Amino acid sequence: MSGTRRVWKLARRPVGEIADGDLVLVEEPLPEPGPGQVLVRVGYLSLDPTNRIWMSDMEQYMPPVELGEPMRGGIVGRVVKSRNSAFAEGQLVAGLGAWTDYLLSDGTGLQPMPEIPGIPVPVAFGTFGVVGPTAYFGLLDIGQPQPGETLVVSAAAGGVGQIVGQLGKIHGCRVIGIAGGPQKCRFITEELGFDAAIDHRTEDVGAALDRLAPDGIDINFEQVGGPIMREVTRRLRRFGRMPLCGLISRYNAKDPMVEEPGFWTLILMRRLTIRGFIVTDFAPRFPEAVQRLAQWMLEGRLKVRQDIRPGLEHAADYVKLLYTGGNFGKLMVEVNAL
Amino acid sequence: MSGTRRVWKLARRPVGEIADGDLVLVEEPLPEPGPGQVLVRVGYLSLDPTNRIWMSDMEQYMPPVELGEPMRGGIVGRVVKSRNSAFAEGQLVAGLGAWTDYLLSDGTGLQPMPEIPGIPVPVAFGTFGVVGPTAYFGLLDIGQPQPGETLVVSAAAGGVGQIVGQLGKIHGCRVIGIAGGPQKCRFITEELGFDAAIDHRTEDVGAALDRLAPDGIDINFEQVGGPIMREVTRRLRRFGRMPLCGLISRYNAKDPMVEEPGFWTLILMRRLTIRGFIVTDFAPRFPEAVQRLAQWMLEGRLKVRQDIRPGLEHAADYVKLLYTGGNFGKLMVEVNAL
Repeated sequence: MSGTRRVWKLARRPVGEIADGDLVLVEEPLPEPGPGQVLVRVGYLSLDPTNRIWMSDMEQYMPPVELGEPMRGGIVGRVVKSRNSAFAEGQLVAGLGAWTDYLLSDGTGLQPMPEIPGIPVPVAFGTFGVVGPTAYFGLLDIGQPQPGETLVVSAAAGGVGQIVGQLGKIHGCRVIGIAGGPQKCRFITEELGFDAAIDHRTEDVGAALDRLAPDGIDINFEQVGGPIMREVTRRLRRFGRMPLCGLISRYNAKDPMVEEPGFWTLILMRRLTIRGFIVTDFAPRFPEAVQRLAQWMLEGRLKVRQDIRPGLEHAADYVKLLYTGGNFGKLMVEVNAL
Repeated sequence: MSGTRRVWKLARRPVGEIADGDLVLVEEPLPEPGPGQVLVRVGYLSLDPTNRIWMSDMEQYMPPVELGEPMRGGIVGRVVKSRNSAFAEGQLVAGLGAWTDYLLSDGTGLQPMPEIPGIPVPVAFGTFGVVGPTAYFGLLDIGQPQPGETLVVSAAAGGVGQIVGQLGKIHGCRVIGIAGGPQKCRFITEELGFDAAIDHRTEDVGAALDRLAPDGIDINFEQVGGPIMREVTRRLRRFGRMPLCGLISRYNAKDPMVEEPGFWTLILMRRLTIRGFIVTDFAPRFPEAVQRLAQWMLEGRLKVRQDIRPGLEHAADYVKLLYTGGNFGKLMVEVNAL
């Protein structure tokens, strides 16, 4: 094989929002796998809110991407050349790779991707790779939903949020989603079966919660942080749970958090549980999550909306959509036909 | 029986610190128990930080004390007159009562108090009534201490704190206590066996923690809130736990809490668990706690220091000591000889 590949590299750590030039697309000779290595033709690249964290040098859950290095990302693709006995040529693999059309890897972080009859590869990759297990463990293990409880999920039309809400319904909860714009709000109620939606762009979130959940909230599946988190948290009931999955409004933040005097007292008096988690903490139990999520999907109880955009060369623009709410569903880049 | 009794009543809800006149001592005719009632001659009254909460109308875990009503408090005493078949005259009882020398009760909240050979009544009452189970469930159930972990406890020489630290040692932790003044700091290290003490009155708590726990902290048993909580929490390690037991610096607070921009991000990235609790949540398991605490005490592995002050008429002054650090050990009032 000869030719070139394209790789997005981190040129500069973003300050605030991701800016043009923070990532640069480099064309370079297609690498030849050495002993133990594989070359993977990337089909889809997953874009996730956590990408912004990896670009920064803030404290985080794995090492940040080094300057000058390929940008890290979840990928699915086919092995086109293998000098690693664990991977066969033609095999479908998925895992943590890079923003590139041809990934050179020693296999670390890559797993064979089982094809599930009835579930297309991009759906399986986009759902079972990261967002599905995140929703599954965050809601079921940490949130501990009980029938009749009220669940609020922010970023509700996003990759994780739409699954969280549907898992809440499967477990008998009343589900209120917070999303941006009427289209997303209609989607989560009409297509996904959430009980109610709050459009944070046009509605007073606190007033809407008072109206929709006058007796309070049992679970806050938190993905956003800032004022929306505050409005939901202060309405948590006794023994409420808050799986802290993300803080997308805070990753770029430089302003301090100012809480009302009684904020912490409320956590005490209502005996709330706040627990931060990262999906990789549950890695040994991924097969359990994938099996159950796939089953629900095949039964028609779990739907996902994906936002698949073409062209690796636009990845640095696409990723910005996550921080403005510009995507609608799980955001992925189609890099090559699989 | 004839004569009078004295009762502290809540005349006014404190604003900020408890002031003279918020509580008033009333002398009234000794009541005669009606059907189903008992009269208890109170031996000891427990004074606890939560008393300040009950005096206020802030959101709390049981109804606040109503204005004009007897001030609520934990008591131990002897039944002197019983028209309730569950209680015999002469029997020792303990539970939630009032700040009085003779308690009239229908028995709600009172339990027979078993006498444990080798443990004096005030020690058993002061330890097993509230602070011991609080330390036991908060540290063991929520804190989940593992051998070799580092535990920090604030208000370390207080009723709960001294037990938390010793339970930490029994479970193989390295224990750092934060207390006010050299006498308390010496007490927790030299007499209770804590590994280190930080005097928050004279030391920079953050710098001391950096020196004493350079690799970070696994458990923050939080009782104080405010700047001390912040310094400990930001040094929690991955998967750190924070049993939130009290916020004594915040019950009177009117100022907002201002956290650095990355405070919540740290909870997420380090996968911290913050859980508020009130000891009554564990009421069904009190016998387990009392049995194990008593065993450790009889083995000499658990010591308690009590600060027993004479005279019901001074109770309103004594309780203020809790908020200035003026007590040294579990604070109680000796009301009558038992």
